Amino acid sequence: MEIVHILFVIGISAEAMSAAVLGMRHKMDLFGIILLAAVTALGGGVVRDVLLNHYPISWVAHPEYLAFTSVAAIITLYIARNVHRLRRLFLTADALGLVVFVIVGCNVGLEQNEHWLVVLLAGVITGVFGGLLRDIITNEVPLVLRRDLYATVAFVTGALYMSLLALGVNLEVAILITLVFGFSFRMLALRFGWGLPAFSDEGVRGFE
Amino acid sequence: MEIVHILFVIGISAEAMSAAVLGMRHKMDLFGIILLAAVTALGGGVVRDVLLNHYPISWVAHPEYLAFTSVAAIITLYIARNVHRLRRLFLTADALGLVVFVIVGCNVGLEQNEHWLVVLLAGVITGVFGGLLRDIITNEVPLVLRRDLYATVAFVTGALYMSLLALGVNLEVAILITLVFGFSFRMLALRFGWGLPAFSDEGVRGFE
Amino acid sequence: MEIVHILFVIGISAEAMSAAVLGMRHKMDLFGIILLAAVTALGGGVVRDVLLNHYPISWVAHPEYLAFTSVAAIITLYIARNVHRLRRLFLTADALGLVVFVIVGCNVGLEQNEHWLVVLLAGVITGVFGGLLRDIITNEVPLVLRRDLYATVAFVTGALYMSLLALGVNLEVAILITLVFGFSFRMLALRFGWGLPAFSDEGVRGFE
Repeated sequence: MEIVHILFVIGISAEAMSAAVLGMRHKMDLFGIILLAAVTALGGGVVRDVLLNHYPISWVAHPEYLAFTSVAAIITLYIARNVHRLRRLFLTADALGLVVFVIVGCNVGLEQNEHWLVVLLAGVITGVFGGLLRDIITNEVPLVLRRDLYATVAFVTGALYMSLLALGVNLEVAILITLVFGFSFRMLALRFGWGLPAFSDEGVRGFE
Repeated sequence: MEIVHILFVIGISAEAMSAAVLGMRHKMDLFGIILLAAVTALGGGVVRDVLLNHYPISWVAHPEYLAFTSVAAIITLYIARNVHRLRRLFLTADALGLVVFVIVGCNVGLEQNEHWLVVLLAGVITGVFGGLLRDIITNEVPLVLRRDLYATVAFVTGALYMSLLALGVNLEVAILITLVFGFSFRMLALRFGWGLPAFSDEGVRGFE
Repeated sequence: MEIVHILFVIGISAEAMSAAVLGMRHKMDLFGIILLAAVTALGGGVVRDVLLNHYPISWVAHPEYLAFTSVAAIITLYIARNVHRLRRLFLTADALGLVVFVIVGCNVGLEQNEHWLVVLLAGVITGVFGGLLRDIITNEVPLVLRRDLYATVAFVTGALYMSLLALGVNLEVAILITLVFGFSFRMLALRFGWGLPAFSDEGVRGFE
């Protein structure tokens, strides 16, 4: 569906911009920032493609994606002082991106006729691993595994999409329902600070 | 051999539990912990499969592994306050897992008729990289490269296994000898705090 | 060209030595250091090969590379106290290595008839990702994305090499020009502390 492709491009641009802001804070130089933006925006899809032996990987099949993420990163450098004013716009684009990434990732798994658990994980990895790689490279404790139900939205959205398809719902309708539900879930989680019950580590000792 | 498969499942469960404890300490949420457990338990095999072009990778061929690691992670959340009482059991399972991972990894390299250096490294990567990825994601300096002869046990165990096979020892016998030796080596290293002679960095300056 | 192969071996040895020094500082043990040296020296090529589906990956096709990096790491342990005296030699080898890695990486992309953006990125990844993986494993903020124009030299060198070939310049001549230019660029950047204009993060706020 054309709408998925458009939302995908919006999503990778939003991810590239978030990476560029982080790169500036870590005093990376221009090409360091361009690399970080590409890894963040496209890394989830790359990991999924490599794990599922789905070649050529996304940016080899679509080198224009590299142009999109580079341009988004460079623009961010120029508007950085004011980029926080775009906070709401950015979070909206990021939420749309997350849901679209999950749908795109599930579709790749479905095309390859994988087991449903593998399809679900393909969606989750596509949604989550770009941000995970960004946090690993910039030496942050990965936020995507901790906060704002990010990983949870990815799992639930992926499970919904697969359930709709399994129930025989038309592809276009399934995508639209998943988009609306996943996007709303993510925005509500952000708005109200939803989180899963915390697993207190009080009294938890490790094995070392 | 059936015994290798059983020990493998015990090994990935132990790795998933160690990851879940670490995830709780880093205040990850449920799905963050499930992801971390899967990466830790299955990541070594995934890296090996990707590097050797050995597709489908382990959890795509065996999606039930994802169920095992997820269940192990969830159980850990409920018994976490008392999990340190299982310390001895856990370290035993972890030691068995390490040795089994190395044997399984060497077998994949042998099946593909790789050079003996590649086979050895396939075993070492399978044994070591899951813990390495866990430490990278949780932003720890990787313990597997530093402590308790972890990487050393992987190298020596892999070298022993390959030597036995090269000497014409029967597969089952080679696996049993390697299991007994590798497990004992690991447990003794833990018990007596063995370590290689330290490479003091006193007086060592870098190139920067 | 034979000269490229010789410089490549010098380059991976230099990278392995730099990794060994870092491993000692992090109190890794012998096999931890050997693993870190291999990942640092060969990791860029491995990532490129995996992304481009270019199998067998470099060290599976050439297991002797593993021997080179291991020997270089072990030698470093013995001369570590005096290794800083080799600073100039090391930086020269490292600069040569960077340029050769980029050329080798571009060649792999060209062989596979990839889009020029993909070819360029194949070169950059080969030059930069080994050091990136080293810094990730040792939990440093990646220097290659920040300092001394490292990533910049990789991008510019790769772009020059591809431009020369696109202009119909003979392969040997293009390699020589690229080597001389890239090496000089890197050494001058180090000598005069060149850096791209800093992206001040003053007043830059993120989206969180």
